[in-house]
Amino acid sequence: MDKVKGFRDIFPEDMEVRERVFSESDRWAIAFGFKRIDFPSVEFLDLYKLKSGEELVGQSFSFKDKNGRDITLIPEATPTVSRMLASRKELPKPVKWYSIGKFWRYEDPQSGRQREFYQFNADIFGPNSAEADAEVIMLATKILDGLGLESKYEMRVNSRKLMQKLLENLGVKEPVRAFQIIDRFRKITVDDFVEEISPLLAGSSDVAMLVDILSKPVNPDKLSKLSSSRKDLFSGAEDEIARISRTVRDCSSVTKSRVLIDFSVIRGLTYYTGIVFEAFDAMGESRSILGGGRYDGLMSLLSGESIPAVGFAMGDVTLELTMRKNNTWNVPVKKPSIYLCKAPDAEDPELPGIAMQIRYRGISCSTDLYSRSLASQLRDASRAGCGYALIRGAREIKERKISVKNLGSGNQRSIGLDSLNEFLDIIVSLVV
Amino acid sequence: MDKVKGFRDIFPEDMEVRERVFSESDRWAIAFGFKRIDFPSVEFLDLYKLKSGEELVGQSFSFKDKNGRDITLIPEATPTVSRMLASRKELPKPVKWYSIGKFWRYEDPQSGRQREFYQFNADIFGPNSAEADAEVIMLATKILDGLGLESKYEMRVNSRKLMQKLLENLGVKEPVRAFQIIDRFRKITVDDFVEEISPLLAGSSDVAMLVDILSKPVNPDKLSKLSSSRKDLFSGAEDEIARISRTVRDCSSVTKSRVLIDFSVIRGLTYYTGIVFEAFDAMGESRSILGGGRYDGLMSLLSGESIPAVGFAMGDVTLELTMRKNNTWNVPVKKPSIYLCKAPDAEDPELPGIAMQIRYRGISCSTDLYSRSLASQLRDASRAGCGYALIRGAREIKERKISVKNLGSGNQRSIGLDSLNEFLDIIVSLVV
Repeated sequence: MDKVKGFRDIFPEDMEVRERVFSESDRWAIAFGFKRIDFPSVEFLDLYKLKSGEELVGQSFSFKDKNGRDITLIPEATPTVSRMLASRKELPKPVKWYSIGKFWRYEDPQSGRQREFYQFNADIFGPNSAEADAEVIMLATKILDGLGLESKYEMRVNSRKLMQKLLENLGVKEPVRAFQIIDRFRKITVDDFVEEISPLLAGSSDVAMLVDILSKPVNPDKLSKLSSSRKDLFSGAEDEIARISRTVRDCSSVTKSRVLIDFSVIRGLTYYTGIVFEAFDAMGESRSILGGGRYDGLMSLLSGESIPAVGFAMGDVTLELTMRKNNTWNVPVKKPSIYLCKAPDAEDPELPGIAMQIRYRGISCSTDLYSRSLASQLRDASRAGCGYALIRGAREIKERKISVKNLGSGNQRSIGLDSLNEFLDIIVSLVV
Repeated sequence: MDKVKGFRDIFPEDMEVRERVFSESDRWAIAFGFKRIDFPSVEFLDLYKLKSGEELVGQSFSFKDKNGRDITLIPEATPTVSRMLASRKELPKPVKWYSIGKFWRYEDPQSGRQREFYQFNADIFGPNSAEADAEVIMLATKILDGLGLESKYEMRVNSRKLMQKLLENLGVKEPVRAFQIIDRFRKITVDDFVEEISPLLAGSSDVAMLVDILSKPVNPDKLSKLSSSRKDLFSGAEDEIARISRTVRDCSSVTKSRVLIDFSVIRGLTYYTGIVFEAFDAMGESRSILGGGRYDGLMSLLSGESIPAVGFAMGDVTLELTMRKNNTWNVPVKKPSIYLCKAPDAEDPELPGIAMQIRYRGISCSTDLYSRSLASQLRDASRAGCGYALIRGAREIKERKISVKNLGSGNQRSIGLDSLNEFLDIIVSLVV
């Protein structure tokens, strides 16, 4: 029996790392004062029309429900989270929500793309400020840093408002169309880009100027110098430049990873209105590890009330590729585990209680489920990577004792059942 | 914009409790030596036909994919988990897997039913033993106990093998049909039950006998007495009675909750072959909180290889109802949180770093994102339930200090930035 194409079976060795990713995301979201929410995996397709952009609606995993209405497995979180906020207008702002869930897109599966994937999302509703922009980028940064990627990635930041001004200064009449083309700048050849963008610009010198500025990420401390030297491009964007500089400065102060201005970062979704950002592998992979931005117009589309918002999303597929490349797709600290062996020939009514005594201490404890020989049980214990086997044979049962075998050294000694907790104290202290 | 009927928006106050349920499940599964897996949310509908029973296939949230194939949002985990194991035949047994994920059924939403719900699943593949049966029931028991439900529920255990023998002794020719009717014993009136079951039995005295035995849960220590006094019913089931008694004895030794034999517990799914069990609210709600059993035949249907298996599933919907009824739907320990206030009129480049210093300690820290007055920030801090506000005003910035305000008592004092970590030590120690 096959599974459906583009969907993944996740076995324990991979799930363990994925859980580390979730718990690191969780830990930092809570540290930044975000609260976790969850939402339906299915929404009416209409929620995404006009709001997410054509590409996403075309890729949605949609179908008709039994009443003939178009519904879809959710392709992204933002419209749903906005819908949820619209139903709780009374909540004091800022509202800071995060979520960890599954999303679906009907794309052809390939490296870095699956039809089903996990995504972490975090959003701040209420404030429209450089501090709020910085907070979501800092959260993104600290999650990646916490996963062992510090200085292995670059956070590339831009502003749609800034880009709008820049395109205006270049005489572009269709900024939305230009954004779509710029969004593909790093995915297509320069020649193809020039061919696509040229009809929107006055002349080839403007095209060359745009290609030049898109090609070169700028260190944040150089931004104000660049903007004053290129007034032809940046005139009228002074406030936005000051704001983005402030955001980038704050973010840079909390991480060793580089935070850059990159004018080619524009994001595919149509609803962004201010800052946009993406994290990339510092070694130059083209697909972003995470991305987000400010979307101050979406809430009024959904609820009639204007509420500024900024957020980001991080999927597990590109993240896994990046972590594997950097040898951080692993679980650094192994939890302790004990195998509790029993004599195959002796009744031991105390055994379940002893196993529970171990488990109550947060130690993983397995017992034999087959009535196998002691030798097989010890082989099982070693194969499972247990540090110790505890043995309850006929003699131990009679003497109210338990034998402790160090599976590394092979040493074995016998302790009274009353001393078990002291032994467990040591096991627990060894791994903290 | 509406959400789809039967799907839930989960806001932070409820999500927090749900996370406690997940982490308690997680903690105990690991303690028992289970490993977490995950799997697709979508499978071919064929996977469930013949394996799960008609009712479940009829209730499945199925649709046609873009190639016209019948696919479905998964209604339960067992067929998928079995499919996964079939693809990893080389794994040494026992294989002990658990999962926490979402499932879907196209039912009419009502109290205790949603179209989308969370479910915890745990299964042991390999051993066919009383110890394996006991282990999954003990795991289920310890999760419920850990959620504050100890002695608030009853674990009701039965065996399909035993019931098959009992029905055979009563002369029933169609045990599968009889199981379907017995499965509804607690959901319909006795009169309706009698009407449905009578055609399968020889006479009204047999019907009365069956109703009698289904109505009365038996304390495990009474089972052997009952079976020897009622040889007409239990003849030939001696081995199974000894085995189930052993399982129940082990389970009873690790919990204060009652573990009973209940002959009316039969489970709806067709694939169960041995022990079956369900946990019920001790105060007498009719819907089970969790349920499971042994299904030794499913793996050979799926993969041609016979692998014994036992497991259970626990959904969040009935669990929430039960926990609410018992006033345990809450989060006992609140995590510490600090609000870091800043002077609205002063530049403080150190602020992001101070916030991070707090967050690195695992303490939730929020800062102002609006450039609001100190008074508004303090109001925010109180509303958010923060124990302390830390204040960086113009004076503190100049003197490299920070003011600490206890939001409970209103007391405020000033400490050097160098002493911040010592203060945070105290905060952390207060809540551990």
